[in-house]
Amino acid sequence: MTEIEQEIDPETAPEAGTEEQESYTLDRRNVAAILYAVDTGDRAQLLELMEPLHAADIADLLEQVNAYDRRRLVLLYDRDFDGDILSELDEGIREEVIQLLTPDVLKEAVRDLDSDDVVDLVEYLEEPQQEAILGALEDSDRHAVEQALNYPEESAGRLMQREVVAVPEFWTVGQTIDMMREREDLPEQFYHVILLDPKIRPVGHVTLGKLMASPRRTRLQEITEPAFRTIPAMQDEGEVAYAFNQYHIISAPVVDEEERLVGVITIDDAMIVLDEEHEEDIMRLAGVGEGSLNDRVSETVKQRLPWLAVNLATAVIASMVISLFEDTIAQFVALAVLMPIVASMGGNAGTQALTVAVRAIATKDLTGSNVWRVLRREIMVGLFNGLAFAVIMGIVGLVWFGSPALGGVIAAAMVINLVIAGLAGIAVPVILDKFRIDPALASGTFVTTVTDVVGFFAFLGLAGIVLL
Amino acid sequence: MTEIEQEIDPETAPEAGTEEQESYTLDRRNVAAILYAVDTGDRAQLLELMEPLHAADIADLLEQVNAYDRRRLVLLYDRDFDGDILSELDEGIREEVIQLLTPDVLKEAVRDLDSDDVVDLVEYLEEPQQEAILGALEDSDRHAVEQALNYPEESAGRLMQREVVAVPEFWTVGQTIDMMREREDLPEQFYHVILLDPKIRPVGHVTLGKLMASPRRTRLQEITEPAFRTIPAMQDEGEVAYAFNQYHIISAPVVDEEERLVGVITIDDAMIVLDEEHEEDIMRLAGVGEGSLNDRVSETVKQRLPWLAVNLATAVIASMVISLFEDTIAQFVALAVLMPIVASMGGNAGTQALTVAVRAIATKDLTGSNVWRVLRREIMVGLFNGLAFAVIMGIVGLVWFGSPALGGVIAAAMVINLVIAGLAGIAVPVILDKFRIDPALASGTFVTTVTDVVGFFAFLGLAGIVLL
Repeated sequence: MTEIEQEIDPETAPEAGTEEQESYTLDRRNVAAILYAVDTGDRAQLLELMEPLHAADIADLLEQVNAYDRRRLVLLYDRDFDGDILSELDEGIREEVIQLLTPDVLKEAVRDLDSDDVVDLVEYLEEPQQEAILGALEDSDRHAVEQALNYPEESAGRLMQREVVAVPEFWTVGQTIDMMREREDLPEQFYHVILLDPKIRPVGHVTLGKLMASPRRTRLQEITEPAFRTIPAMQDEGEVAYAFNQYHIISAPVVDEEERLVGVITIDDAMIVLDEEHEEDIMRLAGVGEGSLNDRVSETVKQRLPWLAVNLATAVIASMVISLFEDTIAQFVALAVLMPIVASMGGNAGTQALTVAVRAIATKDLTGSNVWRVLRREIMVGLFNGLAFAVIMGIVGLVWFGSPALGGVIAAAMVINLVIAGLAGIAVPVILDKFRIDPALASGTFVTTVTDVVGFFAFLGLAGIVLL
Repeated sequence: MTEIEQEIDPETAPEAGTEEQESYTLDRRNVAAILYAVDTGDRAQLLELMEPLHAADIADLLEQVNAYDRRRLVLLYDRDFDGDILSELDEGIREEVIQLLTPDVLKEAVRDLDSDDVVDLVEYLEEPQQEAILGALEDSDRHAVEQALNYPEESAGRLMQREVVAVPEFWTVGQTIDMMREREDLPEQFYHVILLDPKIRPVGHVTLGKLMASPRRTRLQEITEPAFRTIPAMQDEGEVAYAFNQYHIISAPVVDEEERLVGVITIDDAMIVLDEEHEEDIMRLAGVGEGSLNDRVSETVKQRLPWLAVNLATAVIASMVISLFEDTIAQFVALAVLMPIVASMGGNAGTQALTVAVRAIATKDLTGSNVWRVLRREIMVGLFNGLAFAVIMGIVGLVWFGSPALGGVIAAAMVINLVIAGLAGIAVPVILDKFRIDPALASGTFVTTVTDVVGFFAFLGLAGIVLL
């Protein structure tokens, strides 16, 4: 029962994952069979096919089919539509699906949900839809949801569940177990019993494992966990996720400004936030606001246009730098051929440095205490990589255009631009972060503008001096 | 004790996180004070300052100071050095710190760790260091670690802990609680009791909360969780993390090929993997292999050089396209000024589309069932954005260079390149994924090559036809 013995021969063991690669993907044949049942209006067949699917998989299915099939599927599925599916759905699709549900089905679906799931469901819905869902709830649940909505968006107060298991700090194991056996509204999942002082302030917590393994007479205070943290209800959810990840927290009590217990956040909530924050970072680094595959074309156009517009403005600035050297280019067209290489290499090296910096800022690994060291390090990296590619490009310039002077110019411009790329790649995100602008959002544009301008200026400027 | 009542006025409530922004950052003054204690060799003061810090924070501290300070700090901290700090350290720094520890301190530090933490610690260490740590363990622990190391890298078998709580399926709540009270080696954290059939195959599990809330005579089979999944020991850890995230799993039994229980994976392990996978995605999208701030300059140069070399090759291909039109450029130098704009806009739009696609492939939202719809959608987005910027650039071309023909050429090239960008942004990652190449790793280079080549070719080619 304890440690399990098993021998595996590393020689014959297959590589991890080779067979299981697709194991959690919604099967393509499965999707086809479900759509066929929808086509033929065969409800019994549909229910049979949907039965083994998890709500998250059904949500994925609804996201992957087109709007026409989605509508027919939801209508045929009808009263078997589960509230959890709504929670799992992408926001863009969620509103559409809610409108397809009859009031009765919606009511039934929403009543099964925990209050924190309902909060998550309604917080970004339009007013009328929000009210339709709140109206379907029982009074006490609606009250809980409305209270949670009073906390600011993306705060710990929105994230927490209000159902907690907490007892006076002087209780024993026996008292606690008896209370739990009697209580009928225990949360679905909980991992700690919270100890409260007389002012309802959490002072410690006990894991269920320890509780169960201890004799009934044991005082809870004797078996509390050594590490214990509370989370302010107003704290940003990103900070909450960071704390769970950094300190390996499983669950933590949430407290108000007087340090009184108001709820509890568990690791599964934190994991979802962490996932969202990562998603946001990646999307922002690429200049894709909040995009998802399920947005309409018009929405996506609107999301991406501003980023492209900013890029256009910076590209025009780079063009202006080029236009300063029109006469030089007119005399040596080879410059026009080679100049994008310098800019492109600078842009790439800059993106490398800035991505490392943006991640390090997000994980709090890049701070005031090491920023100068990191900056020096990136400049050195830029210098060495610059020298390596200077040699290569010098040779390319010489061989392609037969001009040692041109080779020298592109080599020198390469070194300059790669050093500047390392410098800008670190400095830009750090400075943006100082001004509380999300570095993931804006760094890319600034850094590539710098590398474009410096790249063109260095290459064409040096060419003007050396070749003319 | 149940739901906690509290009123918050949304009008006066501060925005989430405004005050707590820096709450989990290692304080800069704190770092300075610790380094001062190291400077003066004041061990008592050092211990006092380090005492409130979590192992994860101490690891961050060691990563942020330079190698000289790190050495002095570790030597002064000496026998108070905790094994958890090693687990939290970045791999680059970990080896360095292990070498600083005396054999006695290392032995003491490692013995406190759970076997799965030791596996995590030693799996990427060099042979001699690995043996030093394994040698410090007690026989039974060393055996467990060595068995785990027999599983392939990045498999569920490496991730799992071998300490499990499992009982025969016919047991009652009372029997289970009595067993737990008697057993002395319960895992630090566990969330379910696993039910086993006579062949040691997991058939279900019971949450500790349900166990505690049920009368002693209840049969475990009556209170098992409705959703229950086992994880094959050979499954890739990325798939494991996906399943935990998708299905909101807290802990799940790991089984061998005969479905027998071999260990258990908990959500905190899955969260760490999820975090690493995201990190990898971001880094790969930016062409930064496995980089970290703590790598030496020479390592970083080596990591980034191959990516820059690939970029250079693609930039040279783009240059060759330009060189086809040298005569055209020689007659209209304005073309050299404007051509980077078309390429840059295409590169940007392509990166937007490919980032959405790479993420959607990773989260299994982009599959065979919706790829054609997504492709059509991106082409439409490219068309509309292309038309918008065609108008703007047409005007810029006209005003700046006073040539309606030039304005028309750049406008047409813009539409063509943005449509191609949408097409390539989806098609390239999807095709790479089909060939089981990580799309995060290689898509960027392919897509920007396509947009550069198409951009230059369309713009300069059209110019040659229209303007000459």
